[in-house]
Amino acid sequence: MKRTSRDIRTANRYQVLRQIIAASPTSRQELAAATGLSLATVATLVGELLDLGLITEVGFEDSAGGRPRGLVAVDAAGGALIGVDLAETYVRVELFDLALNVLARAEESMRPGDSRPEQVVGHVATAVGSVVAQAGVEGARVLGVGVSVPGQVDRDTGVSEYAPNWDWHDVPLLDLLTGHIAYPLYLDNPLRACAVAELWFGAARGCGDAVVVNLGTGVGAGLVLGGGVHRGVSNSAGEWGHTTLVLDGRPCHCGNHGCVETYTGAPGIMLNLRELCPDSPLLCPGDQTATIDALARGVGAGDPEAVAVLRHTARYLGAGVADLVNLFNPEVVVLSSWVAAAFGEPLLAEVRAAVARHALRRPLAATRIVLSPIPTDPVCLGAATFALEGALQSAGKGARTRTAGGRR
Amino acid sequence: MKRTSRDIRTANRYQVLRQIIAASPTSRQELAAATGLSLATVATLVGELLDLGLITEVGFEDSAGGRPRGLVAVDAAGGALIGVDLAETYVRVELFDLALNVLARAEESMRPGDSRPEQVVGHVATAVGSVVAQAGVEGARVLGVGVSVPGQVDRDTGVSEYAPNWDWHDVPLLDLLTGHIAYPLYLDNPLRACAVAELWFGAARGCGDAVVVNLGTGVGAGLVLGGGVHRGVSNSAGEWGHTTLVLDGRPCHCGNHGCVETYTGAPGIMLNLRELCPDSPLLCPGDQTATIDALARGVGAGDPEAVAVLRHTARYLGAGVADLVNLFNPEVVVLSSWVAAAFGEPLLAEVRAAVARHALRRPLAATRIVLSPIPTDPVCLGAATFALEGALQSAGKGARTRTAGGRR
Repeated sequence: MKRTSRDIRTANRYQVLRQIIAASPTSRQELAAATGLSLATVATLVGELLDLGLITEVGFEDSAGGRPRGLVAVDAAGGALIGVDLAETYVRVELFDLALNVLARAEESMRPGDSRPEQVVGHVATAVGSVVAQAGVEGARVLGVGVSVPGQVDRDTGVSEYAPNWDWHDVPLLDLLTGHIAYPLYLDNPLRACAVAELWFGAARGCGDAVVVNLGTGVGAGLVLGGGVHRGVSNSAGEWGHTTLVLDGRPCHCGNHGCVETYTGAPGIMLNLRELCPDSPLLCPGDQTATIDALARGVGAGDPEAVAVLRHTARYLGAGVADLVNLFNPEVVVLSSWVAAAFGEPLLAEVRAAVARHALRRPLAATRIVLSPIPTDPVCLGAATFALEGALQSAGKGARTRTAGGRR
Repeated sequence: MKRTSRDIRTANRYQVLRQIIAASPTSRQELAAATGLSLATVATLVGELLDLGLITEVGFEDSAGGRPRGLVAVDAAGGALIGVDLAETYVRVELFDLALNVLARAEESMRPGDSRPEQVVGHVATAVGSVVAQAGVEGARVLGVGVSVPGQVDRDTGVSEYAPNWDWHDVPLLDLLTGHIAYPLYLDNPLRACAVAELWFGAARGCGDAVVVNLGTGVGAGLVLGGGVHRGVSNSAGEWGHTTLVLDGRPCHCGNHGCVETYTGAPGIMLNLRELCPDSPLLCPGDQTATIDALARGVGAGDPEAVAVLRHTARYLGAGVADLVNLFNPEVVVLSSWVAAAFGEPLLAEVRAAVARHALRRPLAATRIVLSPIPTDPVCLGAATFALEGALQSAGKGARTRTAGGRR
């Protein structure tokens, strides 16, 4: 797990493409200034990206008396990427151009019980077929499909080792998907998808250290450390949802008690509601999505029961997020995923106040807490970025050295 | 906080010197193989270390028919390093040669109340003077003094921002020390010292991701992530002692309740003893060191009260260490500092069993939990390593390029 020259080269390639996506058109000189890399390194990496057809030369700018500088930009039409957000209650699929604009979207909802691997794979294959047809994209132009799978995933083998809400153990998901989808597939989990999405396109762009708090059916933390995604030695880092907040507290499906997730995941929030207001009309038994939506609408309308549940939940969330602030000392904590999006600003305000009661002064002062600024589904975007990263990684294999300012 | 080319160069320089210290004498070819760096990069870095006098050429080895390979080794006599473990109840100072062998040692104990900054600085200056005199080292050969200060430290300004057990706030410690000590000074906290010690010389050597759990008066986690020490955006990462384990539990001096430290730091363990066995003869009121020693001896002798306190404490520790395993997914968790050293193997066995009850299967399977293998005070060793890192960092400024295999 040591960083080799090759890892550093891949990380640099990501960094340069991220910057080009953020600021197209741009010059090699601007890229060197923005990334801290040398001009020679940037020129080599830009050459590789040109060779891959991911970016294109778009002319020259004057440079105050010097030689005109070549400009490059993302080649939006250079390929398509597909991101799959496979969640406990739905499958959402989006197709993107290389500037990561959404060109097509499909969604399938999954009823409780629809959780056999074959059923789930069927939903994914249908939705992927739908976005390709909608966008009218030739198959050859799809660079890859990134799939976010809840729980713990082995990226290399494509096995879903543990998906607690479906009770999946060691499901060979990549093999099953390969039977239906012909494009290159990249599997990982939603913690990684949200982290990558914020790092490339959202609130963690340009940050060394950021924590993306994923609030959905499950909860967890996507970790950006030292400017890259931290995965841990077996790709299972970030299981903040299964850290103990209340020793001997509520039982958790992981076998532990008092886990953060049991108080702050969508089923935990339903339980908070049931405990505080057993007869509340906001409770839609057996339907997480409807209950969270009802609570969020209630908060917007000033319903005292809904407000009480939000405050109660934010108390747990605040203590748990303060733990992340004290442990990681990040520049930013981003609240992401569907539960955070449903509650929005009122949740943010309550969480900020609760974190301030629990965190140490020094790391608290260094940290911003924000909602994800990504306007579309961050998990789809992050999953599509897995495919983009995959394409960039295979790029290194035939890389040639180019001189600074070299033309194609 | 982005990684620049310069950061990468410094990290590579650390990595090469670490490997030379681990395996002297060694060749540039072996170093390239062990670090994953290119031979050209290794040759440049070796040249810099030779120029600094930290390493020396020690001859040649045959290379199976090829040109003989030059061997390098640490130049133990090339300089001296001093490490200061400034703890709540003692000051320990050790003087090292460049192979990090201890040449001299001094200790001052501090009574409760001896905690005014001037008193503490006086103890440090006395002990530093003592080790230099004992070792008979010329002042000019001392490359630097690393000082580990409890709590939160600003490394750049040398201000102790918060040392909870002394109630220090914004003490300009570097300025105070500079009045008494003429060598270059490097301040940081014990979490960083223990992490650096394990990374260079202990159980985290060669690891990408490791967590060093520091069990003393305060508790915390030194973090090794991506092969380097993770400090966070304001050098306050690792405050695991101030994460919530028991919501609304014991009050903590940080203002929060139920922090890990309140159950597992030396004063917390004393409180565990007082709650379980109020009249125990093992309790030495007002003396943490004596109480922990009495408990450790009691565990060794099979005293049921001592064993009960160890088990009770390990239950909290196990839940807290499982949180670290689930969040970081490290290769190794190292139990370090004086409380861990006092209890030793019986603590390790109880903690391993408790972690197994709380952690998720996948990260648990990937993690070893061990006692620190460092035979001397790891905080002194880590603090001395700060001084070595400081010397290496200033080295980069006048670095020259050398060719592979070049001789001095």
